Amino acid sequence: MIQFADQKQEFTKRPSKIGRRSLSRSISQSSTDSYSSAASYTDSSDDETSPRDKQQKNSKGNGDFCIKNIKQADFGRREIEIAEQEMPALMALRKRAQGEKPLAGAKVVGCTHITAQTAVLMETLSALGAQCRWAACNIYSTQNEVAAALAEGGFSVFAWKGESEDDFWWCIDRCVNVEGWQPNMILDDGGDLTHWIYKKYPNMFKKIKGIVEESVTGVHRLYQLSKAGKLCVPAMNVNDSVTKQKFDNLYCCRESILDGLKRTTDVMFGGKQVVVCGYGEVGKGCCAALKAMGSIVYVTEIDPICALQACMDGFRLVKLNEVIRQVDIVITCTGNKNVVVREYLDRMKNGCIVCNMGHSNTEIDVASLRTPELTWERVRSQVDHVIWPDGKRIVLLAEGRLLNLSCSTVPTFVLSITATTQALALIELYNAPEGRYKQDVYLLPKKMDEYVASLHLPTFDAHLTELSDEQAKYLGLNKNGPFKPNYYR
Amino acid sequence: MIQFADQKQEFTKRPSKIGRRSLSRSISQSSTDSYSSAASYTDSSDDETSPRDKQQKNSKGNGDFCIKNIKQADFGRREIEIAEQEMPALMALRKRAQGEKPLAGAKVVGCTHITAQTAVLMETLSALGAQCRWAACNIYSTQNEVAAALAEGGFSVFAWKGESEDDFWWCIDRCVNVEGWQPNMILDDGGDLTHWIYKKYPNMFKKIKGIVEESVTGVHRLYQLSKAGKLCVPAMNVNDSVTKQKFDNLYCCRESILDGLKRTTDVMFGGKQVVVCGYGEVGKGCCAALKAMGSIVYVTEIDPICALQACMDGFRLVKLNEVIRQVDIVITCTGNKNVVVREYLDRMKNGCIVCNMGHSNTEIDVASLRTPELTWERVRSQVDHVIWPDGKRIVLLAEGRLLNLSCSTVPTFVLSITATTQALALIELYNAPEGRYKQDVYLLPKKMDEYVASLHLPTFDAHLTELSDEQAKYLGLNKNGPFKPNYYR
Amino acid sequence: MIQFADQKQEFTKRPSKIGRRSLSRSISQSSTDSYSSAASYTDSSDDETSPRDKQQKNSKGNGDFCIKNIKQADFGRREIEIAEQEMPALMALRKRAQGEKPLAGAKVVGCTHITAQTAVLMETLSALGAQCRWAACNIYSTQNEVAAALAEGGFSVFAWKGESEDDFWWCIDRCVNVEGWQPNMILDDGGDLTHWIYKKYPNMFKKIKGIVEESVTGVHRLYQLSKAGKLCVPAMNVNDSVTKQKFDNLYCCRESILDGLKRTTDVMFGGKQVVVCGYGEVGKGCCAALKAMGSIVYVTEIDPICALQACMDGFRLVKLNEVIRQVDIVITCTGNKNVVVREYLDRMKNGCIVCNMGHSNTEIDVASLRTPELTWERVRSQVDHVIWPDGKRIVLLAEGRLLNLSCSTVPTFVLSITATTQALALIELYNAPEGRYKQDVYLLPKKMDEYVASLHLPTFDAHLTELSDEQAKYLGLNKNGPFKPNYYR
Amino acid sequence: MIQFADQKQEFTKRPSKIGRRSLSRSISQSSTDSYSSAASYTDSSDDETSPRDKQQKNSKGNGDFCIKNIKQADFGRREIEIAEQEMPALMALRKRAQGEKPLAGAKVVGCTHITAQTAVLMETLSALGAQCRWAACNIYSTQNEVAAALAEGGFSVFAWKGESEDDFWWCIDRCVNVEGWQPNMILDDGGDLTHWIYKKYPNMFKKIKGIVEESVTGVHRLYQLSKAGKLCVPAMNVNDSVTKQKFDNLYCCRESILDGLKRTTDVMFGGKQVVVCGYGEVGKGCCAALKAMGSIVYVTEIDPICALQACMDGFRLVKLNEVIRQVDIVITCTGNKNVVVREYLDRMKNGCIVCNMGHSNTEIDVASLRTPELTWERVRSQVDHVIWPDGKRIVLLAEGRLLNLSCSTVPTFVLSITATTQALALIELYNAPEGRYKQDVYLLPKKMDEYVASLHLPTFDAHLTELSDEQAKYLGLNKNGPFKPNYYR
Repeated sequence: MIQFADQKQEFTKRPSKIGRRSLSRSISQSSTDSYSSAASYTDSSDDETSPRDKQQKNSKGNGDFCIKNIKQADFGRREIEIAEQEMPALMALRKRAQGEKPLAGAKVVGCTHITAQTAVLMETLSALGAQCRWAACNIYSTQNEVAAALAEGGFSVFAWKGESEDDFWWCIDRCVNVEGWQPNMILDDGGDLTHWIYKKYPNMFKKIKGIVEESVTGVHRLYQLSKAGKLCVPAMNVNDSVTKQKFDNLYCCRESILDGLKRTTDVMFGGKQVVVCGYGEVGKGCCAALKAMGSIVYVTEIDPICALQACMDGFRLVKLNEVIRQVDIVITCTGNKNVVVREYLDRMKNGCIVCNMGHSNTEIDVASLRTPELTWERVRSQVDHVIWPDGKRIVLLAEGRLLNLSCSTVPTFVLSITATTQALALIELYNAPEGRYKQDVYLLPKKMDEYVASLHLPTFDAHLTELSDEQAKYLGLNKNGPFKPNYYR
Repeated sequence: MIQFADQKQEFTKRPSKIGRRSLSRSISQSSTDSYSSAASYTDSSDDETSPRDKQQKNSKGNGDFCIKNIKQADFGRREIEIAEQEMPALMALRKRAQGEKPLAGAKVVGCTHITAQTAVLMETLSALGAQCRWAACNIYSTQNEVAAALAEGGFSVFAWKGESEDDFWWCIDRCVNVEGWQPNMILDDGGDLTHWIYKKYPNMFKKIKGIVEESVTGVHRLYQLSKAGKLCVPAMNVNDSVTKQKFDNLYCCRESILDGLKRTTDVMFGGKQVVVCGYGEVGKGCCAALKAMGSIVYVTEIDPICALQACMDGFRLVKLNEVIRQVDIVITCTGNKNVVVREYLDRMKNGCIVCNMGHSNTEIDVASLRTPELTWERVRSQVDHVIWPDGKRIVLLAEGRLLNLSCSTVPTFVLSITATTQALALIELYNAPEGRYKQDVYLLPKKMDEYVASLHLPTFDAHLTELSDEQAKYLGLNKNGPFKPNYYR
Repeated sequence: MIQFADQKQEFTKRPSKIGRRSLSRSISQSSTDSYSSAASYTDSSDDETSPRDKQQKNSKGNGDFCIKNIKQADFGRREIEIAEQEMPALMALRKRAQGEKPLAGAKVVGCTHITAQTAVLMETLSALGAQCRWAACNIYSTQNEVAAALAEGGFSVFAWKGESEDDFWWCIDRCVNVEGWQPNMILDDGGDLTHWIYKKYPNMFKKIKGIVEESVTGVHRLYQLSKAGKLCVPAMNVNDSVTKQKFDNLYCCRESILDGLKRTTDVMFGGKQVVVCGYGEVGKGCCAALKAMGSIVYVTEIDPICALQACMDGFRLVKLNEVIRQVDIVITCTGNKNVVVREYLDRMKNGCIVCNMGHSNTEIDVASLRTPELTWERVRSQVDHVIWPDGKRIVLLAEGRLLNLSCSTVPTFVLSITATTQALALIELYNAPEGRYKQDVYLLPKKMDEYVASLHLPTFDAHLTELSDEQAKYLGLNKNGPFKPNYYR
Repeated sequence: MIQFADQKQEFTKRPSKIGRRSLSRSISQSSTDSYSSAASYTDSSDDETSPRDKQQKNSKGNGDFCIKNIKQADFGRREIEIAEQEMPALMALRKRAQGEKPLAGAKVVGCTHITAQTAVLMETLSALGAQCRWAACNIYSTQNEVAAALAEGGFSVFAWKGESEDDFWWCIDRCVNVEGWQPNMILDDGGDLTHWIYKKYPNMFKKIKGIVEESVTGVHRLYQLSKAGKLCVPAMNVNDSVTKQKFDNLYCCRESILDGLKRTTDVMFGGKQVVVCGYGEVGKGCCAALKAMGSIVYVTEIDPICALQACMDGFRLVKLNEVIRQVDIVITCTGNKNVVVREYLDRMKNGCIVCNMGHSNTEIDVASLRTPELTWERVRSQVDHVIWPDGKRIVLLAEGRLLNLSCSTVPTFVLSITATTQALALIELYNAPEGRYKQDVYLLPKKMDEYVASLHLPTFDAHLTELSDEQAKYLGLNKNGPFKPNYYR
């Protein structure tokens, strides 16, 4: 399993973001990213007993789960019901499933964030005919009350907020290592579940029809496996479907940059000078929002095509050192590493806010700030003042991790698009005729991507126009799509 | 004191916003509005002893104050220092005060929200030569740690978070009813302090040079006194200066509408249909922000001039009943009452969010929702679900009180403008030659309003152009302003 | 007539904008500003005979007019009909006039631009009961075919495109110096008609009930007369009504800055660096439009309040010399003189476009470019290249006169607002009870300003909300307005 | 040559847009589209002699050209110099060519619009080492004075404004059918030149190294040839490079929609209701511009992904029949045919403006308006009123042809991007090692597309950031690009 060993190496080299915990290296980065959820205010962690030491049963006497506290099920149910209202596409799939059950016989093992939105997905898969067993892909992100509601509803869930690394792998193992049940579909977010099966139960792949993977990291791993000729089932990369990309990056970040900055710093945007590093989809969203709020926005780019777009959209394109002394806010959205290094941090003005909207925790060289002459002061959750000997303070958000995940919330509607894409990918892989998919990584077919979009239009009371036969012929298109080439964004 | 009796009557008629508390009628509305502060996370209310029952002294042995806990002073000091960084104008005034002390001899009694920003104002007044005694204008809004820092710094502060009504008046009384010290200037926010002196110590006005009043309500009271011929000193209405108005209403609300909605509901703005009632400065700010975030915004108006502006700015002008069934969010900014009545609430769609950015708590007829067939469910702080018998839920924010005060924060920069205006008004009234101001209510002179603005320009590294002599002559202006007629907005 | 003599002096001092014509000093500046009209393409000036030497009669045998060519009447009628479609308010006034004739007995002498829109106004005044005689306020702006249609319709019009100065005053004289008809109302645009009556027929004022004046210049003259105690009838300043101001300045300029630049230079806005001098209503309009098109906009200001607004709206506030070397476009909107002087012109980069949206032709010191070392090259109508010895070219538009009037068009809808305001001002002055107006200059009552706005709402299918009795009482307002204080903008 | 015969068929079926001319079917659509040029005001077509009947020589005695009038050369030279200022990339290529001549030995035959911008391209190719012979791709679009300047400069140009169809093919033939000179590169715009060589001189392809094709139509023809196995040299599709697409569609149309509407109708945008059919790049540009100007914009779409984007950008997604009665402006940008049919035209309101920004002249069914009961009235160049029996008028622009080409201008900067792309494509094909390109149609390599963009950044004083070695390694990229996958838009 060379490819995984390599990855472990990579993890070692990255600066550990949390000094006080010592995680072994094999745990994936994403599984330790903190995750701020709408419902985190319900966290009553008074009970310190480990769930692994408890014996719980739901009201029907079923005990095949391991969660924090089954008694929180009612509260979790309400959270799920609220989420259902903004996940119209999954509810529509459920309605259609009243007749046919496209996932009848499917045994899905999943490893994702366990939130109200995931619960809506799981209950939809169940309505479509699937059996599900589920673990968390992140040791912090589980909404305990939602896990309780799922357990109460009969799902075999193994997850709680604040797992140890050992707990993390134990939960995953409990999902797959079970007498008399073997998964035939994998739904993964980060690749840890896939990794575990590869490592411990490689024979299981004989019955598995496919993997649906959601995250950048997980997709990267799959492509590596594929290149190395070691991918033994078809895999669907749902991360790169157009609809998901636009929502996760452009539309969601357009809102979360404002939200994340406000919740942490209460900063006024009007008149502020901001530099945004990177003008991809995330950068475009950040820039548009801040410009609209009256900020003066500068952009840095390496790609001349994106750079020219920034110019045409009305942003001055600069190198970071040209503006670093004068800006009030620095935002990274490059996907790169060491974009904001100590040299720049040294030159920022007093009170400058620094945050990352891009990728993991690599873009700001936070490690370079852990030197003796600098003082760190935690002023709020997720907000540190780093203080220079002369008194200058830099306001560092989320220790350089993703602002949008750490200090803002992801709207249910955005998660709905992701979840629907996942559901359709499972249906496609499960029902595909022999030979349509080989042992390779696939993008969701364009037509299904369009279908995901169309299921979300009623939310906006939006009415699609249909092509006439004559028009379809003129354009050389099928009336039902796909309407654009695959590369269309 | 007929005029105050009348006002009491008015308070009675307004729907009491908090059923569980019974306030006597003489307490002003504003003093019970809840107020969400940036520093509220520091609230460790473990100590239940009333401050009135405690004996505390600061490190110099001074005990002429009454606050929650003097030990929080260090933490409060840091809050004040952070606020100083965004209140450049007051810091500039302090610098100039190193030579002259324009408030030398001034004895200022104040009654305002007691926050870090107010502390910066108080310490500035002190640096300008004034002595200060201070009470809170709101029973909830005091930042205890800031009060502690002020007490430690030698200020006679009487305030804590969670005062009873009796506490409220007791604190005010302790500010003015003191041996050997008599105020000669009043700084008021809401008119309660002024009211108390009128009622209890009318003779005090003989030595008072003027009142500076900040709030709509307080200004209204002053105009009533003036009309009735009972105003016995000059008063400065700082509420209506151009700079303050634009910042409090247009620029601040442009940001706080987004912030308030996100913090309470995590709603995604893109594609949402929103109706904004009222297209004054507040409405203009709300509409601009939501349009920029991709919402589809409808406007209602009564004034044809504002209505035409809404049209030209790209908003459909409708009556509320035309769109009430289809909108996702309803926002009131009219200053009027009963704008959103039960009839409209009955017709809203499931999940519709309703909030008030306008005035007090009158715009949404919340009382009409307190009927037996409707269920109220508190889902978060400041967020209620009101549930109809058929299951429809309306999401009501802050029980109809001001969203921007209750669920968002006011940026320090906005408060800086207000505080600077207050300081300059105090200086102007205190130093005005005999006869410049009579027993009437005045607006801050245009030139001082411009001065407030100019003190805030360095924050943005903004460089003002100066008129040449020739140009000033051509325009018929003094080179140093004022540059516009008084009515200019 | 001292005040007019003074003004003549002032005219002398201003740089004459057109070297090749020698105008005597008494003609007003505005009357020689070129004016680009939508219908200018119909100008078939093949006939060189002066209208004063022609004998023309309309189809009914009436010859009391002097215009270019009565045969163009049909074409002019179509222009008028098209204009009627975008002047809904005047058409509404006509409808109401079917019963009452509020101008019955009024004898209006007018001096304005003679365009299709003015024709709609004149025919409305006629429908309201007035008799009209009319001259042009500008020697270039008359649409000959419209004048023909008016003459054919029985109006006594004296105007053609390309009048000499002598023609100009002759036409005005023909309007007032007529046997058996004496005006009792004046509608003026620039003050030349008023001036002429003051100078030649002062006794006429005995029967005149009032003056309605439209232009900045004319209003300025009236205030001077008033100050000098020489104003002998009431005058209405319609220039400063809120509705007109917002439309003429903010909303109209927001569009005409783009239009004027495109028609003259075909410049692409995206990515261009622009400096806008002045952030009043005109500057706000220009900045908003250019920002939206992807330009990077800098602002200069002298007034700190407007400067702070520019900051909050997202524009860097600079002094002109900070950016003059780097900008692609310079736009003046200050109302001041010598804002862009030779020193700045010398430092602009090659290809820089310079234009004026502000006031008259004073803002750019064009005279300073008339030196031997600079070459002027006329590259298009209204576009000059001024070429420095080193080959650098500055693109000067409209020789520094108003871009929006010279190189763009004023939308009919904007003119509709002006014309309606004028009509209502005439009605108000003509019908006002004795004593309501004295020999002074008045603003249009707020309520009538609101009425003008309300008459234009149906164009946008806009629906106004009405106050309930209870709400009106709560706000202390009359249900029918006025809804705002007079100073509200 | 079956494929061309087929195309002739297609031309027949399209509605002929110009009744008064009878063109044979073999002339391509694009060659008869009218084309509005910045310099069209210089058209002094007093001389009616056909250029083919004239004997002209340039000042060096060379007569190998055929143009309108060699005496206009000076004026044309100035136009070219002005264009050079906004074509920085070509000028940069010339500079680099001082050392190496990447097109040394190239013999380029071209067929494009002959404008100042094309002249800059041709003179650049010449500076790079190429010999050029050139004809016009459109019978109307030639700027005669530019053609004169090129002829004076020694180029063999065969083109004038107002060619007959016979002239058109004669000019093309003169370019290729020349003693002692045979082209080895083709630069085509529309495919007519390629067609002519295929038809008349197929043997010429033996020496031809490649074709660079610019237009949608021409590219379509090449793909057909390729599919049919009849393409005998490599061809470069420069139409679909990212940079060109974004500029031609999104950024250019964002400006030209406003410009085209203003120049033709002087309409005010504020408050207008507009429906935009199609939300691709062109539709996105139109919607953004109109929204910014205060219009209320509705969108129609067939593709759910684009539809969802429209929702998130704040536009109501409707079917055309939902809004057709209420809108003031209808804009088509679909690329489809019969989007606005007679049924919709019948239901539009009086004064509704209808125009096409999309594709050819197919989107509005103009033919359906050529019925006896409707009256057409030409009110301006490119503006027709179509009048219904009840008096309703529809304002049809450019008879349904492309508004942006017919009634606006294409900024030089946009043409610069196209021209640079063409030049680089020629260089690439001419210098490519044997075997890199086969007899197929290629997109410009991503890296060269990025190079085009980078050459235009200095115009905006834009500074690109360079990857460090470490960062490039982290991203797995070459430091010099390409930076994005090929499908990135």
